[in-house]
Amino acid sequence: MTSRDGFQWTPQNGLKQGVPSIGVISPSTKITSDTPWDVIVIGGGYSGLTATRDMYQMGEELEPSFDFSRGVNYFELRTDKHSTTMSHEEEDTLLATALEKFVNVDGDMGRIIVPFPYAGFHNPDARKYDKMSVLDRLNVISQSLTPNERTGLESFILLCSCGTLETTSFFEFLHWWALCGYTYRGCMDCLISFKFKQGQSSFAIKFFNEALSTGNLSYAFNSPVKSIQDEDKKVTVTTRDGRSFTASCLVSTIPLNVLNDITFNPPLDPIRTQATKIGHVNQCVKVHAEISNKDMRSWTGISYPFNKLTYAIGDGTTPAGNTHIVCFGGQHNHIQPEEDVNATKAAVTSMAPGNMDIQRLVFHNWSKDEFAKGAWFFSPPGFISSSLDALRQRHGNILFANSDWAIGWRSFIDGAIEEGTRAALTVKEELRSTPLRSHL
Amino acid sequence: MTSRDGFQWTPQNGLKQGVPSIGVISPSTKITSDTPWDVIVIGGGYSGLTATRDMYQMGEELEPSFDFSRGVNYFELRTDKHSTTMSHEEEDTLLATALEKFVNVDGDMGRIIVPFPYAGFHNPDARKYDKMSVLDRLNVISQSLTPNERTGLESFILLCSCGTLETTSFFEFLHWWALCGYTYRGCMDCLISFKFKQGQSSFAIKFFNEALSTGNLSYAFNSPVKSIQDEDKKVTVTTRDGRSFTASCLVSTIPLNVLNDITFNPPLDPIRTQATKIGHVNQCVKVHAEISNKDMRSWTGISYPFNKLTYAIGDGTTPAGNTHIVCFGGQHNHIQPEEDVNATKAAVTSMAPGNMDIQRLVFHNWSKDEFAKGAWFFSPPGFISSSLDALRQRHGNILFANSDWAIGWRSFIDGAIEEGTRAALTVKEELRSTPLRSHL
Repeated sequence: MTSRDGFQWTPQNGLKQGVPSIGVISPSTKITSDTPWDVIVIGGGYSGLTATRDMYQMGEELEPSFDFSRGVNYFELRTDKHSTTMSHEEEDTLLATALEKFVNVDGDMGRIIVPFPYAGFHNPDARKYDKMSVLDRLNVISQSLTPNERTGLESFILLCSCGTLETTSFFEFLHWWALCGYTYRGCMDCLISFKFKQGQSSFAIKFFNEALSTGNLSYAFNSPVKSIQDEDKKVTVTTRDGRSFTASCLVSTIPLNVLNDITFNPPLDPIRTQATKIGHVNQCVKVHAEISNKDMRSWTGISYPFNKLTYAIGDGTTPAGNTHIVCFGGQHNHIQPEEDVNATKAAVTSMAPGNMDIQRLVFHNWSKDEFAKGAWFFSPPGFISSSLDALRQRHGNILFANSDWAIGWRSFIDGAIEEGTRAALTVKEELRSTPLRSHL
Repeated sequence: MTSRDGFQWTPQNGLKQGVPSIGVISPSTKITSDTPWDVIVIGGGYSGLTATRDMYQMGEELEPSFDFSRGVNYFELRTDKHSTTMSHEEEDTLLATALEKFVNVDGDMGRIIVPFPYAGFHNPDARKYDKMSVLDRLNVISQSLTPNERTGLESFILLCSCGTLETTSFFEFLHWWALCGYTYRGCMDCLISFKFKQGQSSFAIKFFNEALSTGNLSYAFNSPVKSIQDEDKKVTVTTRDGRSFTASCLVSTIPLNVLNDITFNPPLDPIRTQATKIGHVNQCVKVHAEISNKDMRSWTGISYPFNKLTYAIGDGTTPAGNTHIVCFGGQHNHIQPEEDVNATKAAVTSMAPGNMDIQRLVFHNWSKDEFAKGAWFFSPPGFISSSLDALRQRHGNILFANSDWAIGWRSFIDGAIEEGTRAALTVKEELRSTPLRSHL
């Protein structure tokens, strides 16, 4: 169709009004309902076309994790042999320099290899980096890294993957780097610098309340799933305690590392099954410590490789006026923090000897959580190349939605939203094409 | 409520399981419907909680605007007195250096003044920059800019606002800068480097088709609105040709510069009315030229201030193998391109004398489009500080959704989606709270 809008000029025809467009709707009117309607939308641009929901009206609910306005205001780098402190500007320079050497596989900081973070293998050359571990890449650039750069770089990578250098895919790290805008500053902004004032629960509860307000939501917590039976036009879920639920279709958000514990009938395809057996490598140990030293609010530190926790920052001030320190460890030098609290306390205090007077520890053991078996997704070499497509497929009437196989912010909350959205769109389209029943 | 998950350790109580959380739902089960359901969702994380739609599955549908792989491969800078060419690397350095001087009001490239682009006045100090025009800011830093930097900077700013230096808010430019990640490279990536392979219509049509597929959409194009009457529990729209449509509520996506042409009864509030009279300043002239010189695919150019078009890039190769050049002008040195096509052609050819053998021009005159009266939103000094909140308010049963008053990507398609989302959420909540009628 040709629009009335716009002009064309050519040497042959001179100036003519109207340009071709696939966006011209024909016929231009369709009015079938009786008036009055519930709502009229004036305008057919993107605002008019968009009719969905908004759970992001929390723009003023963010606050910075870091506060370098007072106190010790330094970065503490501790290795097996040396300890040093430096300014946060020096910390940024050290990590940015090291990271840029690490990711600069193409002379443009990875932009050529992963030009579109939402299409990771758009450049097919990216696949070869998925065959490499981060250790493989470190070996390539090892002669160009100072010892401090190497320590900072390794601990930063392990902060992301919480695996080991051998089990962390270099491509997946490049993917994170691309998502973060191809800069160290972008990584800090996207990965660690900001948080919700009232915590993640203040965000999650909005999703739940909105779903509840439809009046169409039934729910059952504390009902671990044992098996899922897919039949011709229905799916039946059976819980461990023997209850059954049947529906036309099912959205499974069961994470990768847990999927293998559920019995599917018919069984999942071989590629997905194999992928669930391999799993992802993130065994993050995240320990929150409340310490009495107020000056530590502006502290950051790396203790690596000797320590059971490797990366930590001052993350807030508690109601009691103490400093909240958040510490990260992982598969490298792994610890089960509740099994030996004294060892956990020692790992915290060893990050800044003399400055960690612990008043409280708070943590969740993601590795031993039977419904997680790890923290956020991070892939081993070869995993994304071989398994991502299969993990995104449906299985009969079962759709799989989890950030573990998102295309964009894979492993982040954003990726979970991406996946939930994807599943919901499919469900909505399929329900529409079947006769109306209970979704009135 | 306290979760079962997680651990706390304190000196007083030792290790205890469970942490307080507002995300714990009580009671933990609510099942009221009869089985079978339409759909079951396993999991209450973000994937499970998200039930909306996805119109962004076009990750592989992007392509770069620039292609510097062959041809002339230079940047052509033409001023009243001098013309020069330089490499694209030199172009980037010139513009990045100039822009960094321009935005660096706080020693951290604007990050302190606008730390959260989705909360522009989070730092109240940002308001003072909304009182400044970009010319005011240029005057502050004028002694630190080379002539080439000043030319590049002014034309880049005017590429964004398409107003004049006097009528462009410095805050609004800082807001764009923050949205783009506080770097020149981010600006290029977010503003001009990428496009949909099949054009914007390929994106818009997906929104329309999805709305249509609900079976609930009636529509009428080519029906300009004359007046809107808001009453107790209904709104009536009357078109210029005398038809009337009545609904419970109304979403108006009428843009800022056009809103004043519609009669509202009761009339709009004084602040909004005043804002619609002021309007935004963007009078972009965007001219697409198909030229026979294939080598110009890798050309970029600025011709300023003497020329009627000031900023242009090689943007594609046409099916005929010619080069597609896109040229931008604005209120500064304004032209109505269809009124004197020879002058328009001269403005195109003057950007690269000798290299612009025009085979076709395509353009839309946004300034004379009665339903736009300008291009994308860009605010004059003081406008956002004084009017943004009022423009976002409802007016009785009328909701206003337009990118012109979005919080985040204001003036971009993303902002239109943000606004459509915002309106739809309100409508949905209000319809839910009224007895079911036609939305069955």
